[in-house]
Amino acid sequence: MNYKSIIRNIGHILRLESIILLLPLLLSFIYKEKHLYISFIIPICLLFIIGELATRLIKQKTTIYAREGFLIVAFSWFLMSIFGALPFFLSKEIPNLIDAIFESTSGFTTTGATIVNDVEALSRSLLFWRSITQWLGGMGILVFVLAFIPTTDSQSFFILKAESPGPSVGKLVSKVRLTARILYSIYIILTLLQLILLLAGGMPLFDSINYALTTAGTGGFAIKNTSIISYNNLYFEIIFTIFMILFGLNFNIFYLILIGQGIRSLKSEELRWYLGIIIISILIISINTLSIYNNIVTTLRYSSFHVASIITTTGFYSYDFNTWPTLSKWIIIFLMFSGACAGSTSGGMKVSRIAILIKNIIRETKKLLHPRQVITIKFNNKPVDKVVLNGVFSYLIAYFFIMIIGTIIISIFDNYSLITNFTAVISSLSNIGLGFDLIGPVNNYAIFSYPSKIILSLLMLAGRLEIFPILMIFFPATWKKL
Amino acid sequence: MNYKSIIRNIGHILRLESIILLLPLLLSFIYKEKHLYISFIIPICLLFIIGELATRLIKQKTTIYAREGFLIVAFSWFLMSIFGALPFFLSKEIPNLIDAIFESTSGFTTTGATIVNDVEALSRSLLFWRSITQWLGGMGILVFVLAFIPTTDSQSFFILKAESPGPSVGKLVSKVRLTARILYSIYIILTLLQLILLLAGGMPLFDSINYALTTAGTGGFAIKNTSIISYNNLYFEIIFTIFMILFGLNFNIFYLILIGQGIRSLKSEELRWYLGIIIISILIISINTLSIYNNIVTTLRYSSFHVASIITTTGFYSYDFNTWPTLSKWIIIFLMFSGACAGSTSGGMKVSRIAILIKNIIRETKKLLHPRQVITIKFNNKPVDKVVLNGVFSYLIAYFFIMIIGTIIISIFDNYSLITNFTAVISSLSNIGLGFDLIGPVNNYAIFSYPSKIILSLLMLAGRLEIFPILMIFFPATWKKL
Repeated sequence: MNYKSIIRNIGHILRLESIILLLPLLLSFIYKEKHLYISFIIPICLLFIIGELATRLIKQKTTIYAREGFLIVAFSWFLMSIFGALPFFLSKEIPNLIDAIFESTSGFTTTGATIVNDVEALSRSLLFWRSITQWLGGMGILVFVLAFIPTTDSQSFFILKAESPGPSVGKLVSKVRLTARILYSIYIILTLLQLILLLAGGMPLFDSINYALTTAGTGGFAIKNTSIISYNNLYFEIIFTIFMILFGLNFNIFYLILIGQGIRSLKSEELRWYLGIIIISILIISINTLSIYNNIVTTLRYSSFHVASIITTTGFYSYDFNTWPTLSKWIIIFLMFSGACAGSTSGGMKVSRIAILIKNIIRETKKLLHPRQVITIKFNNKPVDKVVLNGVFSYLIAYFFIMIIGTIIISIFDNYSLITNFTAVISSLSNIGLGFDLIGPVNNYAIFSYPSKIILSLLMLAGRLEIFPILMIFFPATWKKL
Repeated sequence: MNYKSIIRNIGHILRLESIILLLPLLLSFIYKEKHLYISFIIPICLLFIIGELATRLIKQKTTIYAREGFLIVAFSWFLMSIFGALPFFLSKEIPNLIDAIFESTSGFTTTGATIVNDVEALSRSLLFWRSITQWLGGMGILVFVLAFIPTTDSQSFFILKAESPGPSVGKLVSKVRLTARILYSIYIILTLLQLILLLAGGMPLFDSINYALTTAGTGGFAIKNTSIISYNNLYFEIIFTIFMILFGLNFNIFYLILIGQGIRSLKSEELRWYLGIIIISILIISINTLSIYNNIVTTLRYSSFHVASIITTTGFYSYDFNTWPTLSKWIIIFLMFSGACAGSTSGGMKVSRIAILIKNIIRETKKLLHPRQVITIKFNNKPVDKVVLNGVFSYLIAYFFIMIIGTIIISIFDNYSLITNFTAVISSLSNIGLGFDLIGPVNNYAIFSYPSKIILSLLMLAGRLEIFPILMIFFPATWKKL
């Protein structure tokens, strides 16, 4: 194990976090939230010193491999979430450290689950910090490091691979650094675009910035107690719906459009599956809930908003869907598993994996008919590699087992309804934040006991990093000498 | 496609069903349930004529392959369930045909879900017919045909394979017919043993016969409205618990004991997983429900009875577990997926599949550590074949997708609680019968609409035949000429 490289790389991340914390500090100066100065300055100094020590003392340039890549990612996210909790804790606005860590982890992992009962009572610079964590977490903080911080460690591809969602990671261009820069450039452009459109609709500047950041990361943190309900504005909801769906797209598509090959992007099979699932889900929910709203426009408004919010794992809400009929609720729960496209900022299983799994069922049935025939699964007109297929199976299995174990452990500590505990676990693992019953819209995660909050935080991390990097940490073999 | 062979083989099954229907007819003579004579005689004649026509007119001796094997099994079970419904329907004791087909399918598939509100009001010979369907369905009616009816069609192994549960089918001995006979002999011996033990405890003869038949098939049909609660007898519950667990064992184990190699059977890895899951589940539920019963013996009594009932997919109950805490309920729901050992009469995923899936997670994590190392999964000290592993993955995926689609369709027609609809679907697919909320103990499936009952019946068949034979029927390619 190359410990030096691991420490060096984590050092880079922590130093970066200290720099990013200057942004909310700046805001606290602007809003004169004096009691917050020190709450930001302490973690800034702490992170900077640790980061400097780790990167300066260990000078060695060494190559890293898959194992180190995964461990760097796993530990960076752990530490980042813990240090990111300090402003909440030190300001005493979230007086309990575990609560603060839950909130911070929920931010970085873009889950958007909150334990704050009165979000509107939080200081503005803390709200801003919450939103920043989601924006950074969406595209990935290590991708950010790769893009903008000069690191000399080679083989950074393994880091990109460990942090990027989806069954197979394609580099847009041959160089990792350039790929990372292109990704972040697209991300910034889209975020600004949404910001402008929200401002154009009359949303206040502070609200617009926060919501643009949390939509981009498909995070879902709100700065109002009732999420998007409080605005009750059709224009805003349309903007949110469109941008949530956009941020659920594979960023390759935007890249292709940028380089003038937009037509090619339309051939993406994942895109068609993604839009297909969205349209079918909206239709079913609309028909099913029409009797509640008695108005086609209102029905479409709420059904499309929530389908977009759940499939992209954002978790905004503009209506209490706890009151919907069982059919619509089950559609929502199944969308919680799905997630949006690979290579997007969303969580969950990812549409491409779902599509490959469905194709596998068809293939297996065909194989029973013609046992000697070799039938390959194609995706995007290319045969799916055996290694990728195996990875998809393994991910599904790991996802379900972690879901089961998570639900059991949560139920040890909290005897809430079957659906509350179950959707809390899926919602955390898929980085959504919303659930049903006691964690449905209008409710929050404050009801859970501290052990449950720790488990849910771990599930969020497992979900964001696609399980295996987190599993590895708990695996004795990881720590054996080769 | 070899249609002639398919029709011939189905003919054998239907003729056999007509012969077996003589048993309840005989009972109706004994109990002088005169209004039932004609209700049994009509299906007996109908089945005999169809069976004779199919087997006599088509004389050709032909070989059959996997595809034909699956279709024979799928259609036999369909038709068997439909004709088996006639006595219920013709007697007007279950006046609706869909209800009668639901009850009959639930019987043959050993699900044990009932739509009868007052079971005790049914005639004794009908109750007996219900129990017989579960006993036959448990070991498999086609296995019965292979064992006892002289068929000349070769390659009957494909039929055994299509009807027998588990990831890989091992013949006990080299000849299929002998294997089938050994299986049924063990089955009959165990059923008789339980019958004797129930009688010894003072249970009436009629009750003992019925319960021995429905325990053996891990079916769970009761002849009392409140299942085993009505006896409130610790001795009976212990006998049930032990025999449910025994019928959940791989029958290979009994065969090994029979031929004096009992020690070898202890090395079975599936056996250890099975007992391990049972013991751990009993312990967790006991600790969790101790505060309800305030008595260790009572707690262990109910927890072990229901763990055995659910993991073996029997579905008897001796307490209303709807009142248990969430943790215990989730353990029960997860056991619904698991099922007992391959090669038993139980439904569900089967323990060996679960074990292989868990080993796969460990392997995948190890593979991330050592990407170039080849790591094979071992089960029963033998490496798991790639084909078997792929089959396990595919089964899991097909199971979950059918579960999702089933839940959605049921929710279109019936707006019951999330948990009612969900557990109705898993319970049908895993051939259990019991669920939570409105289909928990003390309740039944009469609440569902007719379309839902049809879907649930299909799910039971899909579960009993391990999905793919039923999927094949709905698959256009199956019906294409080669």
